[in-house]
Amino acid sequence: MTTRAPVLIVGSMAFDDLELPTGTFRNTVGGSATYASFAASTFTEVRTVAVVGEDFPQDVLRSLETRGVQTKAIERAAGKTFRWAGRYDADLVGRTTLDTQLNVFADFQPKIPADFGESPVILLGNIHPALQSSVLDGCASPRLVVADTMNFWIQGEPAKLGEMLKRAHVLIINDEEARELSGIHNIRKAAADIRKRGPHTLIIKRGEHGALLFDEVGIFAVPGFPLEDVVDPTGAGDSFAGGFVGYVAAHLEKNGATERTLRHAMLYGTATASFCVEGVGTAKVEPLVSSDVEARVAQIRALFDLPR
Amino acid sequence: MTTRAPVLIVGSMAFDDLELPTGTFRNTVGGSATYASFAASTFTEVRTVAVVGEDFPQDVLRSLETRGVQTKAIERAAGKTFRWAGRYDADLVGRTTLDTQLNVFADFQPKIPADFGESPVILLGNIHPALQSSVLDGCASPRLVVADTMNFWIQGEPAKLGEMLKRAHVLIINDEEARELSGIHNIRKAAADIRKRGPHTLIIKRGEHGALLFDEVGIFAVPGFPLEDVVDPTGAGDSFAGGFVGYVAAHLEKNGATERTLRHAMLYGTATASFCVEGVGTAKVEPLVSSDVEARVAQIRALFDLPR
Repeated sequence: MTTRAPVLIVGSMAFDDLELPTGTFRNTVGGSATYASFAASTFTEVRTVAVVGEDFPQDVLRSLETRGVQTKAIERAAGKTFRWAGRYDADLVGRTTLDTQLNVFADFQPKIPADFGESPVILLGNIHPALQSSVLDGCASPRLVVADTMNFWIQGEPAKLGEMLKRAHVLIINDEEARELSGIHNIRKAAADIRKRGPHTLIIKRGEHGALLFDEVGIFAVPGFPLEDVVDPTGAGDSFAGGFVGYVAAHLEKNGATERTLRHAMLYGTATASFCVEGVGTAKVEPLVSSDVEARVAQIRALFDLPR
Repeated sequence: MTTRAPVLIVGSMAFDDLELPTGTFRNTVGGSATYASFAASTFTEVRTVAVVGEDFPQDVLRSLETRGVQTKAIERAAGKTFRWAGRYDADLVGRTTLDTQLNVFADFQPKIPADFGESPVILLGNIHPALQSSVLDGCASPRLVVADTMNFWIQGEPAKLGEMLKRAHVLIINDEEARELSGIHNIRKAAADIRKRGPHTLIIKRGEHGALLFDEVGIFAVPGFPLEDVVDPTGAGDSFAGGFVGYVAAHLEKNGATERTLRHAMLYGTATASFCVEGVGTAKVEPLVSSDVEARVAQIRALFDLPR
């Protein structure tokens, strides 16, 4: 018996200036919480904790609300919204950060409303690990804590990151980050090392090559879905995480998420991310409906359907 | 009803000087036909066509024979055996060719004994495409022709390669080669383009990320098997090809290989390649037995076993 539980998402909301092979797109709405919230809202109720500046468009918040996202903890602070500018290589794999302006995000202190603190599933987007821990301090007894992080914190805040990891059940990072966090090149050994630091489940994202899940049961691999047209990889990882937690929250068991649910959630995260990269910014994630994702999940399952 | 058919393998036999992170290994026996023949002989009878110099060790030929490889078309020519020297990066992904000495391989003209020409499955290893075509001229009516090639021929001999491709049923290359051959970056579009040039099935190897098969039915993805200890990637692609054709030949239907058989063969190729990289040179492929491969195939299948 599973229940459709709400998910709490904390992360950034941003403007992105994107230099893509297909053109330059300025003031594109982005940020980890934005992508993840649109993604998760395809599956369940979302409660978003973030900060935006005075310049952030109200209609994006309204669009989130029409999808069942509670936006009351998206603080509107005096000043400008976080801004990131980047240029992608022709292959859409490599990218260079051209500019980062933290703006109102520099003083972000997530405030968790009491009812949000009861959320059974938490997605800690890629923010300072001390802030990730402070979010958990504001949560009663989450059944599943899913966290993201990046090289910047692995290098700069290893102690704070270590404390956060002890409280996370699932960590979602890419292979380079897994190697850096563990100090081990071999991905299987790196995964074993990281799982000793707290998370019982490690998910390693590998871009177009899909994702690997490591847990007590073993290893589960989902291939990337080979797309005909990749437009903009920005937010793919956040859309994966959002689709993943959204599916998990929508299929939560009394004691948390089963290994079965986490494996199925890998497919839904992969499917959601595959839509994300087909459009610029959140264009293809914002209108996603369940039937779109189900159809793509069926296509992904067909990729590893071995005839008997 | 399937029959265990023999497979004809043509390619190089070589000495490799390998600079690996774990040490330098000189005069390691290698070459595409060597790896592929050891690999395929786990599954069926192999007939190898190649050339070696006076310095090539007789005991390697004997080792092939004890595994059921017919070596009568391995010509021993006056002069030295083909030699390749390479240095691998610490991550064992990148590699630099330090030296190539063609030696007796420079004048290699494959001679196909009449009984070998009746082989129903052919693996055309990575040699000059005109030689690959000449091998097919010596074959009666193969039911499945599997070919390999590389950037050197894609750039240097596009017309000869085009002629060979018209006669190949399955092409096995890596993603970089697929992009170069088609002139298309997107892997799905590149596959569609290449499949119009002759091969009904394209297999794209992606190293540690596994392999993709494109055919009329759709796309099939096999994940790479995450190993704890990768020692030497040399010959992994040839071992994949050898395991693949060996399995196909051992399960051949009257009209050739079914889509089902080709998909299962992807697992056996992947399993065989995963053993290859666990040892230096052919060390782990040479003693392979069927039960080793079956056990590894079961582990690979578990990677994408989605609980119902």
